[in-house]
Amino acid sequence: MPRYKMAIQFDGKDYAGSQIQLLNGIEKAKTIQGELEKAICTLQGIDFSQTNNRPIKTIFSGRTDSGVSALSQIVHFDFDKKIVASKFIKSLNEILPDDIAVLKLEKVDEDFHAQKSAKSKHYKYVLINRLNKTAFDKGLLRIEKPLDVEKMQKALKYIEGVHDFTSFKNAGSENPFTECEIFEANCLKEGDFIIIDLIGNRFLYNMVRIIVGTLLMIEKNGLPSSEMKKILESKDRKRAGKTVQGYGLTLVKVEY
Amino acid sequence: MPRYKMAIQFDGKDYAGSQIQLLNGIEKAKTIQGELEKAICTLQGIDFSQTNNRPIKTIFSGRTDSGVSALSQIVHFDFDKKIVASKFIKSLNEILPDDIAVLKLEKVDEDFHAQKSAKSKHYKYVLINRLNKTAFDKGLLRIEKPLDVEKMQKALKYIEGVHDFTSFKNAGSENPFTECEIFEANCLKEGDFIIIDLIGNRFLYNMVRIIVGTLLMIEKNGLPSSEMKKILESKDRKRAGKTVQGYGLTLVKVEY
Repeated sequence: MPRYKMAIQFDGKDYAGSQIQLLNGIEKAKTIQGELEKAICTLQGIDFSQTNNRPIKTIFSGRTDSGVSALSQIVHFDFDKKIVASKFIKSLNEILPDDIAVLKLEKVDEDFHAQKSAKSKHYKYVLINRLNKTAFDKGLLRIEKPLDVEKMQKALKYIEGVHDFTSFKNAGSENPFTECEIFEANCLKEGDFIIIDLIGNRFLYNMVRIIVGTLLMIEKNGLPSSEMKKILESKDRKRAGKTVQGYGLTLVKVEY
Repeated sequence: MPRYKMAIQFDGKDYAGSQIQLLNGIEKAKTIQGELEKAICTLQGIDFSQTNNRPIKTIFSGRTDSGVSALSQIVHFDFDKKIVASKFIKSLNEILPDDIAVLKLEKVDEDFHAQKSAKSKHYKYVLINRLNKTAFDKGLLRIEKPLDVEKMQKALKYIEGVHDFTSFKNAGSENPFTECEIFEANCLKEGDFIIIDLIGNRFLYNMVRIIVGTLLMIEKNGLPSSEMKKILESKDRKRAGKTVQGYGLTLVKVEY
């Protein structure tokens, strides 16, 4: 069956993550995948609610947590009818909620797989570093104490390269493959915003959020940037910082 | 009684306008003034809900419509207890919802009046000019057809100066004083955003939103920029464009 690759964008603020949550065919929570599959069904005249077995199954490059957004998430699905991309995108965007948009659609080889074929992912975490509240913080993490961005940048350099990231993996995750390669890890300040960019071949469950939490812990406790290296080498989740909130994290790009 | 001048900031997206809406002492809708007065009452240990007569009355520099935001709105109120500004601001910000913030508080002369003493107001309208939807448009007005910003800028020049703005006043408004002075009216494009800035001594009910709607109508119908002058001089609301949506409009500053 023909396979289609689709780039979608979403503001994850009001969603319980990307992955569809079904119980006996009924959606338990509002998810990106749920909205997307429902919209495709609506467009094709298929009643999503009447079927336990999802008639259109979309495969995401990876799951994103509750509150996490995407500038460009890649999804594939198989579809036996002819699709005219421009018309399909326009119609789907009209059906989808305001905070989900389809950017691109193309037919791909049947061996393309949104998750398995991915070569790199770029994540960005944005937080606010300002003493006072404004009315436009929109629920982003705000740290009152001025952060030492240069020190955070130094700490990030220790995680570049190939490492076992067990220390930065959610304790509940049972995935035994904990080796990842971080191609680039950077931190910068733009006005009141601190922006942390991580590009890697793969990321473990909650890994970006735990890395950010660890940077903040190192800063807060006045530890040297080399603490990052010690935590990484300890392979001990307990040594790392807290998992920061999901809202503020954005999947920027997936490359193949 | 001592009078206090306060600068507040709010994201108006989820509010039914700034002005409190009470029916027999019960709030009919969520408003900026309602939240602010309730928060001051909470801080002072006064039960807002138990009283029909608002115990703390705030006076705004002017009313803003549903969906309208403010970077700095000025408010005054009279209060007989001593206020330590920094502590008052911090506590009030903790009580207020995330989308309302107090920026500044100072004691002023008793003849200061947030509305009557105002010398100028600066409003900004932001809309999106892009063919395609994104997931981050957040409900802002989006115009698909590329807009001629130079022509819009020329049209805006006709409303600078002292004029009778009857054409740009909500038909329901009965205020007979329709003369306003516009100090500056400008339009620019920043990426996909069109930003219209209006600075004037006063604005009639819905005036900014009708001016923006008229600019868009002139563009859409391929009329010359001088049409703005004709509409202004006609003193006929029916000649002007539609009132655009409130969300996208921000009160930037009030000067005294």
